[in-house]
Amino acid sequence: MNQTKVVEEEPYNYYDYSDWYSNNMEPTRPPKEVILPCDPTADDQLFHICIASVSLVVVLILAVLKRRKSLCEGFASGSTGISSPVNFLDQTQHKALAVAVFGLVFSKLSVLVLAPDPLPFSKDTPQDIKEYMKIIAIFYWPALYYPLLACGTLHSKLGYKIDCPKTPELYKYYSLLASLPQIGCLGFLCIKYPLLFLKDAKANGSEDLESSYYTDYVKLILKKKNTSVRSDKPKLLETIKDTVKSYIYTPEKEFRFPLKLAISAFVSSIAVYQVALLLVILVIPTLHIVRSGIDDKFPFLLEGFGIVLSEDRMEVVQIVIHYTWCLEVCYLCGLTLACTLTLIMLMRSMILHRWNLQGLYRGDIYNVYNCQKSIRPSQTGLVCWMGFIGYQAAVISLGMVLQTLVFFICFVWLVFLIIIPILYGQNLILFQVAAKAWPVWLTLILTITLQHVTARFACIKKEAGTRDLNNRGSLFLLTYLLFLINIVVGLIAAIWRMVITALYNIIHLGRMDISLLNRAAESYDPAYCYYTHYLKVEVSQSHPVMKAFCGLALQAASAGGAGQKMRDAEEGIQLVNQEKRPDKVVNSRRVRARWQLLYTLVNNPSLLGSRKHYQLQVGRPK
Amino acid sequence: MNQTKVVEEEPYNYYDYSDWYSNNMEPTRPPKEVILPCDPTADDQLFHICIASVSLVVVLILAVLKRRKSLCEGFASGSTGISSPVNFLDQTQHKALAVAVFGLVFSKLSVLVLAPDPLPFSKDTPQDIKEYMKIIAIFYWPALYYPLLACGTLHSKLGYKIDCPKTPELYKYYSLLASLPQIGCLGFLCIKYPLLFLKDAKANGSEDLESSYYTDYVKLILKKKNTSVRSDKPKLLETIKDTVKSYIYTPEKEFRFPLKLAISAFVSSIAVYQVALLLVILVIPTLHIVRSGIDDKFPFLLEGFGIVLSEDRMEVVQIVIHYTWCLEVCYLCGLTLACTLTLIMLMRSMILHRWNLQGLYRGDIYNVYNCQKSIRPSQTGLVCWMGFIGYQAAVISLGMVLQTLVFFICFVWLVFLIIIPILYGQNLILFQVAAKAWPVWLTLILTITLQHVTARFACIKKEAGTRDLNNRGSLFLLTYLLFLINIVVGLIAAIWRMVITALYNIIHLGRMDISLLNRAAESYDPAYCYYTHYLKVEVSQSHPVMKAFCGLALQAASAGGAGQKMRDAEEGIQLVNQEKRPDKVVNSRRVRARWQLLYTLVNNPSLLGSRKHYQLQVGRPK
Repeated sequence: MNQTKVVEEEPYNYYDYSDWYSNNMEPTRPPKEVILPCDPTADDQLFHICIASVSLVVVLILAVLKRRKSLCEGFASGSTGISSPVNFLDQTQHKALAVAVFGLVFSKLSVLVLAPDPLPFSKDTPQDIKEYMKIIAIFYWPALYYPLLACGTLHSKLGYKIDCPKTPELYKYYSLLASLPQIGCLGFLCIKYPLLFLKDAKANGSEDLESSYYTDYVKLILKKKNTSVRSDKPKLLETIKDTVKSYIYTPEKEFRFPLKLAISAFVSSIAVYQVALLLVILVIPTLHIVRSGIDDKFPFLLEGFGIVLSEDRMEVVQIVIHYTWCLEVCYLCGLTLACTLTLIMLMRSMILHRWNLQGLYRGDIYNVYNCQKSIRPSQTGLVCWMGFIGYQAAVISLGMVLQTLVFFICFVWLVFLIIIPILYGQNLILFQVAAKAWPVWLTLILTITLQHVTARFACIKKEAGTRDLNNRGSLFLLTYLLFLINIVVGLIAAIWRMVITALYNIIHLGRMDISLLNRAAESYDPAYCYYTHYLKVEVSQSHPVMKAFCGLALQAASAGGAGQKMRDAEEGIQLVNQEKRPDKVVNSRRVRARWQLLYTLVNNPSLLGSRKHYQLQVGRPK
Repeated sequence: MNQTKVVEEEPYNYYDYSDWYSNNMEPTRPPKEVILPCDPTADDQLFHICIASVSLVVVLILAVLKRRKSLCEGFASGSTGISSPVNFLDQTQHKALAVAVFGLVFSKLSVLVLAPDPLPFSKDTPQDIKEYMKIIAIFYWPALYYPLLACGTLHSKLGYKIDCPKTPELYKYYSLLASLPQIGCLGFLCIKYPLLFLKDAKANGSEDLESSYYTDYVKLILKKKNTSVRSDKPKLLETIKDTVKSYIYTPEKEFRFPLKLAISAFVSSIAVYQVALLLVILVIPTLHIVRSGIDDKFPFLLEGFGIVLSEDRMEVVQIVIHYTWCLEVCYLCGLTLACTLTLIMLMRSMILHRWNLQGLYRGDIYNVYNCQKSIRPSQTGLVCWMGFIGYQAAVISLGMVLQTLVFFICFVWLVFLIIIPILYGQNLILFQVAAKAWPVWLTLILTITLQHVTARFACIKKEAGTRDLNNRGSLFLLTYLLFLINIVVGLIAAIWRMVITALYNIIHLGRMDISLLNRAAESYDPAYCYYTHYLKVEVSQSHPVMKAFCGLALQAASAGGAGQKMRDAEEGIQLVNQEKRPDKVVNSRRVRARWQLLYTLVNNPSLLGSRKHYQLQVGRPK
């Protein structure tokens, strides 16, 4: 680990910015530390060419295997196996694998933003073709990691990253920190794949359909619900508890997320991490440079602008350094708050996703969309389905950047207008203004109180169970006399409206599951629009009742005697009764099963369009 | 009109800002015009003291008259007359009078913002008690003009204002321009009052209830509706026409606005005018001063900041003057756009108010509020009802200021980044960046097209009337491979989401009838909250069917034989049949009338709580 050559011993030597000195700013002290380029055991270019070829070979082998397999076997089974290289986004049992690979690819993108060489083959990419390289890299990395989704290991990179934590990029540990999610994902894959191969070499695709989840779901629907009606008004403590609970995601046993939503949530969390890292890297070192650049000459500069902080020049330097430190603290506080809020919003989104999916399974289309829509895959729906993970990651990233900016400004105001004046007893401008304006506040409070008191005691008449107006004359008089002062009250309400709208929308900008616009204009919000389209496709494809039926149909088909069994399956007999019985009992069972089919369809109307009879009927020309 | 003494003949002499020279800026040329204080024929202070005493005397006379009248007469009539000094906000026939007085008082408030003497009695108010004076003035003006609501004329001010259009305030015609709405209102009152006194000296209060409007409304309800179902899909042209129509307010014969909403709309229009005037006065003269301050020394100043616009100094001056002129044009364009949009939004608001009121009369509470609420006056409701006009004026004013600011910034960008570069062929930064980024745009467009084409032709299977997924494998593969590029697409969507949300909310900030927040959080928007509370009170008080019944009840009471007639009235017999008939026919009529009563109540469920039986039943202890 002898890569670091310390030139001089100094504080604030966390960075090395050779780019900065040439054009923008001239810090007064020279850079303290020169990080020599990391010397990996293998040549980087060679390594990547090897990896890429390995990746290509694996894809070819998989393709050949798939072709042979599909030639040898029939329709019923094996066509959706994990060894089939394209069916990875199905609701498979190995959800975590897909999640990890998507996380890995996303981590690569985050590193791309600052990387000097977007593609690993070319070193020292010229500035003018760097953007093109980035576009190519956006396609290259998913292709490279594709075999990981199907099989393969690629853990040789791991050692390299931990060997070389210091790179000559903006912040010396950036490379390591940015790779952490990547290392995590790779590590998980390293452990999971061998385990999978050891445990169950003949991984079967219909595993998903055979799992008990879907049949459990159907059983749950067929069960009678005993919902307890809540006794009168909830207490304040309970309301608070409920509100807090509604923001904390707790998994439910009887509900499993579609794979795409799980990936989306994981990628979003990585996005939060990476954006936070980028925001720190892009601002904090700059602040450090500015702070180290403040010296004896700085007070002259300030005096040039007519600002005199103190008579003593050294004191001015101290004050300005203290202020930049305050700025840094504000920025980090803002960033932390933005991170926390984004994560809370992510959890809330998960809860709402679940609620929406459950609602749509039940057919509560109006509650979810606020209008009636048909739940079936459409062209736009499919495009949105394809892009959903990416959209969610982008929206959450932009939301976090904006939140950080806004919270930073709020914290700066808080610190410089309230906290510092209180601590040092200087520049109490805000308090002086507030103190001077007391007659305004007093008048406003008195007016509002007067209106409330009059409304309560003089103008409302409670009689015979109804409430009506009383003393209409004085009400009108008061309305007229307080007309102008109510404009001032209204002005405060209008400012509050502006602030609350802006804050609400900035906090919820990262959430795709709600529209930021008014009820009537919801469809103009592009992110919400994507989400509704995505949801339609997801619901039409991942309906648990349909899946349960498909599982039964496959069982029936593989066990032979398809005709009768298929009908039994659709009528849900197998769910209720799998033993053999005499004919009469079977008949009564069938009647009950038919009733249960009806009940299921009533509770899941979106299934109606997928039924066999319905399709045949509609399709037949008359 | 010899008040203006021209000191020197020069361009740009539209203003006189003695305040400015002392502290802030030093224009290089002296002020050109000195406006001598206006010399009204009567002393201003004396005039106002007279007006105030006249006002007081009139109020006293009215109070005495009212007292004697109520002692002499009974309950049934006269208690809601125009000569009753407090019932002016009732749904009277003389809506325009109340509207004009409110407009007058509001105009006074707008003038208060800049006035050197908030109260007319004290001249040269010291700066430190000016704010207090303003608070007092806010209460003084409504009190002063109060008799106008009941009677009286006050047109002596009119001549004064037109005599003295030039005042030493910021802009010399400001005083005249700001008084225009005031003059208009006063003029209208001057014409209307004498007419009223001539036409109908014994103006009667139950006039409102006697008008045919309410009975017409009830007849309309009882009529059968023949709504024509629209034939299939509307054409594009029709859609556009409908959209345009939905923003233009056209009065409907069968619907009359409650007085409060009419006043609110009028005051809001005055607010738009006054705010626009203030925004011009506060900015344009400053820009003129800055422009007149640009001289030969200005280029040196620019060079001090390292900006060299041209080698020739005179050319630099010309360029900078041209730029300030561009800024002024941008500002005026922004202001005009903001005014237009606010007025359009006001019209749209009126349409929605009508729609909401009609909906609530019908009992469509869910459609209006998106949740179930009880329509009855409450304490909060009354407070909101009292303040509604003021709130609406304040919200629309703030909305306009914000819109002007935002549109100004947008126009500045448009002019300095697009129009000027195109016209002069210089500083084409934006175009250069756009041209350089073409591979990004090309990639994005190709990717989106690819996804749409694939979704359409490869992934959707139309079979037997249903649509289903096809080629799931290639869909999944495409999803994975385009994952990173979809993040870029998502980023553009996220930015668009931010822009559209901000624009939508800024444009709609002045409207109280819609919430700016998401469907689930509507109640956090204070303005919308006020509006919903206001609406509840308004609907519970101005329901046309209730009014029609009250009118009939009053008629019945005054004609004698109250008992039977009252019952007839409630059962709606008088609406349908007012001739005498034999008993049998009356009986069959009564059955029909009862059915019609039922029909009316079903269509106006909010009336149910006000019925006599209902009140007695609920009120009786059991």
